[in-house]
Amino acid sequence: MSGRQSPDSLGVALIGTGFMGKCHAMAWRNVATVFGGAQPRLEVLCDTPEDRAQAMAGQFGFARASADWQAALADPAVDVVSITTPNGLHRPMAEAALRAGKHVWLEKPMALTLEDAQAMADLAAAHPGQVTVLGYNYLRNPAFQAARGLIAQGAIGRPLSFRGVYDEDYSADPDLPWSWRMTHAGGGLGALGDLGCHLVSQMVALMGPVAEVTAMTQIAVPTRPSPDGPCAVENEDSALALIRFASGAQGSFATSRVARGRKCRLQWEVQGSDGTLVFDQESMNELWVHRAGEAGFTRHLSGPDQPEFAAFCPAPGHNFGFNEQKVIECRDLMRAIAGGPAAEPGFAAGLRIERIIHAMAASNGRPVRIVEESHEDA
Amino acid sequence: MSGRQSPDSLGVALIGTGFMGKCHAMAWRNVATVFGGAQPRLEVLCDTPEDRAQAMAGQFGFARASADWQAALADPAVDVVSITTPNGLHRPMAEAALRAGKHVWLEKPMALTLEDAQAMADLAAAHPGQVTVLGYNYLRNPAFQAARGLIAQGAIGRPLSFRGVYDEDYSADPDLPWSWRMTHAGGGLGALGDLGCHLVSQMVALMGPVAEVTAMTQIAVPTRPSPDGPCAVENEDSALALIRFASGAQGSFATSRVARGRKCRLQWEVQGSDGTLVFDQESMNELWVHRAGEAGFTRHLSGPDQPEFAAFCPAPGHNFGFNEQKVIECRDLMRAIAGGPAAEPGFAAGLRIERIIHAMAASNGRPVRIVEESHEDA
Amino acid sequence: MSGRQSPDSLGVALIGTGFMGKCHAMAWRNVATVFGGAQPRLEVLCDTPEDRAQAMAGQFGFARASADWQAALADPAVDVVSITTPNGLHRPMAEAALRAGKHVWLEKPMALTLEDAQAMADLAAAHPGQVTVLGYNYLRNPAFQAARGLIAQGAIGRPLSFRGVYDEDYSADPDLPWSWRMTHAGGGLGALGDLGCHLVSQMVALMGPVAEVTAMTQIAVPTRPSPDGPCAVENEDSALALIRFASGAQGSFATSRVARGRKCRLQWEVQGSDGTLVFDQESMNELWVHRAGEAGFTRHLSGPDQPEFAAFCPAPGHNFGFNEQKVIECRDLMRAIAGGPAAEPGFAAGLRIERIIHAMAASNGRPVRIVEESHEDA
Amino acid sequence: MSGRQSPDSLGVALIGTGFMGKCHAMAWRNVATVFGGAQPRLEVLCDTPEDRAQAMAGQFGFARASADWQAALADPAVDVVSITTPNGLHRPMAEAALRAGKHVWLEKPMALTLEDAQAMADLAAAHPGQVTVLGYNYLRNPAFQAARGLIAQGAIGRPLSFRGVYDEDYSADPDLPWSWRMTHAGGGLGALGDLGCHLVSQMVALMGPVAEVTAMTQIAVPTRPSPDGPCAVENEDSALALIRFASGAQGSFATSRVARGRKCRLQWEVQGSDGTLVFDQESMNELWVHRAGEAGFTRHLSGPDQPEFAAFCPAPGHNFGFNEQKVIECRDLMRAIAGGPAAEPGFAAGLRIERIIHAMAASNGRPVRIVEESHEDA
Repeated sequence: MSGRQSPDSLGVALIGTGFMGKCHAMAWRNVATVFGGAQPRLEVLCDTPEDRAQAMAGQFGFARASADWQAALADPAVDVVSITTPNGLHRPMAEAALRAGKHVWLEKPMALTLEDAQAMADLAAAHPGQVTVLGYNYLRNPAFQAARGLIAQGAIGRPLSFRGVYDEDYSADPDLPWSWRMTHAGGGLGALGDLGCHLVSQMVALMGPVAEVTAMTQIAVPTRPSPDGPCAVENEDSALALIRFASGAQGSFATSRVARGRKCRLQWEVQGSDGTLVFDQESMNELWVHRAGEAGFTRHLSGPDQPEFAAFCPAPGHNFGFNEQKVIECRDLMRAIAGGPAAEPGFAAGLRIERIIHAMAASNGRPVRIVEESHEDA
Repeated sequence: MSGRQSPDSLGVALIGTGFMGKCHAMAWRNVATVFGGAQPRLEVLCDTPEDRAQAMAGQFGFARASADWQAALADPAVDVVSITTPNGLHRPMAEAALRAGKHVWLEKPMALTLEDAQAMADLAAAHPGQVTVLGYNYLRNPAFQAARGLIAQGAIGRPLSFRGVYDEDYSADPDLPWSWRMTHAGGGLGALGDLGCHLVSQMVALMGPVAEVTAMTQIAVPTRPSPDGPCAVENEDSALALIRFASGAQGSFATSRVARGRKCRLQWEVQGSDGTLVFDQESMNELWVHRAGEAGFTRHLSGPDQPEFAAFCPAPGHNFGFNEQKVIECRDLMRAIAGGPAAEPGFAAGLRIERIIHAMAASNGRPVRIVEESHEDA
Repeated sequence: MSGRQSPDSLGVALIGTGFMGKCHAMAWRNVATVFGGAQPRLEVLCDTPEDRAQAMAGQFGFARASADWQAALADPAVDVVSITTPNGLHRPMAEAALRAGKHVWLEKPMALTLEDAQAMADLAAAHPGQVTVLGYNYLRNPAFQAARGLIAQGAIGRPLSFRGVYDEDYSADPDLPWSWRMTHAGGGLGALGDLGCHLVSQMVALMGPVAEVTAMTQIAVPTRPSPDGPCAVENEDSALALIRFASGAQGSFATSRVARGRKCRLQWEVQGSDGTLVFDQESMNELWVHRAGEAGFTRHLSGPDQPEFAAFCPAPGHNFGFNEQKVIECRDLMRAIAGGPAAEPGFAAGLRIERIIHAMAASNGRPVRIVEESHEDA
Repeated sequence: MSGRQSPDSLGVALIGTGFMGKCHAMAWRNVATVFGGAQPRLEVLCDTPEDRAQAMAGQFGFARASADWQAALADPAVDVVSITTPNGLHRPMAEAALRAGKHVWLEKPMALTLEDAQAMADLAAAHPGQVTVLGYNYLRNPAFQAARGLIAQGAIGRPLSFRGVYDEDYSADPDLPWSWRMTHAGGGLGALGDLGCHLVSQMVALMGPVAEVTAMTQIAVPTRPSPDGPCAVENEDSALALIRFASGAQGSFATSRVARGRKCRLQWEVQGSDGTLVFDQESMNELWVHRAGEAGFTRHLSGPDQPEFAAFCPAPGHNFGFNEQKVIECRDLMRAIAGGPAAEPGFAAGLRIERIIHAMAASNGRPVRIVEESHEDA
C-alpha cells in the first residue's frame, strides 16, 4: 500500500447517491479547495441500478460508475471508500473495504446491532494501518469545536450537568407509511439510532465517558399503514435517559422522531461550576456562553476566530452550513490517512456510542452500566 | 363564622414581610382594583421584631401590626391568613390557622417533610369549610393558562412527552455562605423544594397525574464557608428525573440552584400527537405553539384574549409581570372563599406535589411509584 | 396649601376609569407598598356617568366618586390630579388643575395640537410650585434606566447612531370602524401621537436633543366604515423619519399603528463608538449589550441590580410588568412633590416631544429644524 | 462563439483568489454536483504574483494559472469569467471580458463611480448575447426567495412599508489602519458600496422600483492611522435614508460598517396590508411570517419546501450556508447562458442599484429622484 496513503493521490470510491451520498460528493469535491492539498481522485461511484450510478457519476464528477460495489473495493485505484448506504449494509461493506485494504468513511449509525458494531470494531483494530471514521458530522461544526475548546480551557470550570435533546418530526405524521426501517431487523434502533447517536457523540465529546444510563422508550405510533394493512412499528419513536458520567457529572438525555415542529433540534447545555454553554443545531452558527460574573448569556456568532470556519469564510456572521461540516470531516479523514491526528470517532469510538444507545434501548427504566473495555482505549 | 366568608368583609392577616410577604401585600391591595369586588380589609401584619412589623404595616397599608402571630390568628376580624415565613414555620402556622377557623394562603413548598405535609393535608381535610391554597404563582400566568386551555381543546392532540427544567443560579457561587436552609432539618429539600416543586405543579397541570419517577440528585458544592469553618450542605443542589405519567406519556425533569446564568428558567415543552407547546418563565409573556401542518413555531405574546390578562391590561404585548401572578392567585382564593371554584392547589393537591419531589429526592436512580390515596381525590 | 405637598397626606383625584385610569389606580394603591412612605389618600374618582364613577370608586378603593371633575379639582382634600381622559380633554383639565393649585399627572400625548401644548407648558411655567409629569411610562422600565445608565457611564462610548421603531397593529384591520380619533380635530396626530411620542421620549433620553427631522407619513387605510358610509381617515397610520441630533449623531425613526403582528414593538438600538445597546418593549425585561472586545451581544435580564426593579422583587429574571412602570412614575411624581428631583418629562419637556412629532407630521420630506427656546431649559 | 454557450462545455476563468475568489471556486466546483448538468471546465485561474496563482490553481482545481488576466480573456477555451478583484478593477476587466466575447460574473459593487457603472451597462447592452450577472449572493438565499414568493402570492397583501438595515462592525475599531479603500478614488462609496448595495438589491426585489431617496451619511472615524500619520477617511461609515417606492409604499434604510457587535446584520421587515415578513441574514435560515388572523410571528426554518434548498439537502432545519448562495448564483448564470431565464441582477439592473446608492451618498438630506431610463427595461 506504499504511497497510497499520500493525499497526493488519494483515490475515492463512493457508495450511495442519496442524501448523504451527495453530501459526501460535495465534500470530496471541495475539500482541497477549502483546506488546500492535492485534489482527491474521484474514481468510482457505486449505486444500483447501474444507470442511476452512471447518471450521478457525471453529476458528481466521478471518473467511473458501477453497480458492483465489491468490484469497486477491489479496484487498486481506490484508497478510501465512502459508505452511505442503508444501515443494514454498513457491516458487510465496511468489513469488505477493510479486508480490501481500504480506508473507510462510514455514515452513522455504525450498524444495526451491537454485535455487528463489535465485529466491525474488532476488524478495524486488526487493520491498524487503515483509517476508519464515522459520519458524526455535527462534531465538525466550528461552533461545537469552540464549545469543546472553551471547556478544555476551563472557561466554565468543572462540567457538572449536561442537558441534551435531539428532536425531529419526520415520523410524527401517523399516516406516514410503515417501512422496514421501523423494524429491528431492517432498521435497528429507531430515534436512538438515527438521532440519539448524534447527541451521544456530542455528549461524550463534551462531558467525557458515560458510566451508567437509565432510560425509557416510547412508540408513539404503534402501527402504520402498509399495502397489506396496518403493520407494527418495532423500534422506538422516542427515548429519555438519565446519565451518570465517569467524572461524577450527571445528565439528562432525550430524543424523538415524532416531536412536532422540531426539524433539527439537537440542543444541549453544559452547566459548569463557573459558567454555562448552550447550543442548538437549528441555529448552528450560534454558541451561547455565560461565565460567572457576566450579566447573562452572550451570543457568539461563528466566525474566523474559529480556525475551521476561517477556511470557508473570513467574515464572521456569514453562516457556515450543514454540508460544510462534511468537508471538515473529509479533511480530518484525509489528514489521518496522511499520518496526522486520528479522525474521531473511528470504529472503536463508534462502538462506545453504540453501547450507549443500545443500553438506553434495553434499559426499560433500570440503570445499565456502560463497560469500557481496556483494549479499546489503548 | 357566619358572614365571614363573604368577600364583602374579608379580613386579612399577613405573616412575613420579606420577598413573598411584600408580594402578598401588593396582591391584597390590588385584587379588587383589578378584578372588582369589595376591597379586603388589611387587618394585621405580623413579623418580628415588632418595630419591623410596625414599619411595614404602614408601608403595606395594614391597620395593625404585631409580633405575635398566634394572637393575630385569634383575632375575630381576621378571616384569612397569608403565611410567607420560612418553610420550617409552615406547618405550625398553617395548622394553627386552620384550628382557629381561618382560611389559609400558604407559600410553597408546603412543609419541610412529607410527614408534615401529610399532617397538614389531613387537618385541612378535617376543615372542609376552610379554603387552603398554596403559592404556586406560576400556575396563574395567563400564558400558562393559555397552554392548559390549548391542551384541553386538543390543539396539540394527545400529550406524548414532557420536557421540563427549572434552573436558577442563586447558589452557584461557592463562596456563598453556609446557611441552615442547606440542611434537611432547617430547609428540607434543596433545589427540589425551592424550584422543582414549581415545575411539578406545572407538569401535573399540563400532563395529569404522575405514576412513577426515577431520579438522581447532586450536591455541586459540598461544603460552604461559615464563621465556624466549612459546613456541609445536606440538601441537593440539583436533581434530574424521568417521569412516567398515569396517561402513558413520559417526561424528563431537571432542576438546579447552581445553573450559572439562569435566573428564572422554568422552561418546559409538551409534545403532543398533533403539536407542541414551549414556554420559558424568563420570557413569561410568550407561549410558542406549533400545530401539525404549520410551518414552524408561532410566538403568542400574552394579551387580552387571555381573560386574566385582560383584567390587567387591554393591550396585547404589554407585559404581564411576576407580581401580577399573585393578584390572580389572590382572586382565586377570594373566589373560592366566596363559594366559587376551588383555588388549586390546596393542601390535598399540594401533598401530591410533595410526594413527587420527595420521591425524587429519595430515588437514587431507582424507580419510585407515586401512590395516590383515594380519599384525597374525593 | 400648607402641608398639602407633604407625601404624608397627599390627596388624589383620578379622572378616567378606562385602560389608563385603572393603571393609575393600581399605581396609587401600591406606590407606598413598593417604595415606602405614607399611603396616598385616594379622595375622589371622576368619570361619567356618575354610576360608572360610583362603581369604579369601590373597585379602585377611592373614598368618593363624582361625575363633576371641576368640583373634584376644587376639593381642598385633593393635592394631585391624575388625568387619563381622551386627548381632547387634556388641555382644559390640565389647565383647570394647575389653576386650582393642584399637581398634575397627565397621560400622553400632551394635547391635540402644538398650540395647546405650548399653552399648557406656559401655564405650568407660571405655576413653578406645582409638579407636572406626563405619562411616558416606558421611560420608567428598569431595563430602560439601565440603558441610560450604561450610556452615561460611557459603556458604549460616544453614541453615533439611533435606530428606533414603535409599531403596533391595532388599526391594521381595514374593517375597524371609523372614529373621531382618526380626525385631526378629534384625535390630533395618529401613530405619531399615540406611539411615536413614546419613542421620541426614549430617543431624547438616550441621545439628547434633536436638531432636525425629515419625515414622511402614510395613511394605509384612507377610509373606514361608519354608520354613515365610508369616512376619511385624516391622521397618519405610519411615519418614517431621519433625525439629526444636536450632538452630531444621526438616527432613523419609524412608527405605525398598522404593522401586522406587532403588539408593542417599541424597539431601538443605540450604536456607540465602543458598543451597542438593543431593546424591545415586547421583551421589556431584556437589554442586549455589546461592548467592544466582547464576542457578541449579551442578554441582560432585568433584576435587582437595577434599583427600581429591586423595590418590586429581589429575584432576577422574575419579570417586571407593564403596569409596574406606572408605580415608578407615581413614585417619581410623589418624590418631586416632596421636593425631590423633578419627575421628567414635565410639561416643558413634554412640549419638546410634541414639537418633534408635530415637525414629523408636517415635514412631508423636507428637513424641519427643532427650535429649543432657552427659557424652557431654565 | 458557436456552441460555447452550451453548459456541456462551459470553460471558466476566475480572476482573484481572495475571500470571494475562493467562494466562486467552491461554487464552480459544486454547481453540477448540486444541480446536475455537465461539470464546467475550470480552465484558468488568474492572480498576481504568478506563484500565488499557481498555488491556488492546484488548490481550486483549475487546469492552468496565470498572472495575465488579459491573456486569460483572450483564451478561446474560456467562455465565462468570474471577476472577484478590488472594485477599481471591475470596469476594465468587465469591459475587456465583454469585448472578448465572454460572459461575465462580477462581484458587487459594480464599479467605483456611477459613470463607470453606466458605461459598463451600456457596453453590456451592446453585447446582448453575453450574460452578465452581479454577485448579489444574498438574493439567492432560499429563505429570501421564499419571502419573494410569499409577497408574489399575496400572502401579506399589499406591501406598505419596508424597514431595512445592513450593519457590520469591520471598521468600528478606530485603530484600524487607513487604507485606499477609504478614499473615493480607491474605494468608491463606503458602507453604501460595500453593504448598502446588498440591502438595495433585496429591497427592490421585495418592494419594486424606488422613486425617491432622502439620505444622510456619517463618517464616525474621520482619520485613521497610517505610516505617514493620520489620514482622512473620505467615504461614509454609515448612511440612513427614507425611501419612496414607485408603488406608493415607503421605507427606511440604514447601513453601517461601524456598528459594534453586528457581523452580518442584513435585517429587513416588509409590512403589508395583510401580514408582515421579517428576516435577518445572521440567522439566514429563518423567515418570520405573520398573516392577519394569526396569533403572532411564525418561525419558518428553511427546508426542502424551498426548491433550491432541496437541491442541497432534503432535511429541513439542516442549515443552508453562506457559500451555498454562490452555488445557486452560479447555477442561475449557467442556466442563463444556456438560454434559460435571465440571471438577475445583470448590469442593467446593477446600474439601477448603483443609482440608488449614489443618490443616497449625494442626498445630504434632500430628496433625490431616481430616474429609470426606459431602454434599460427593454
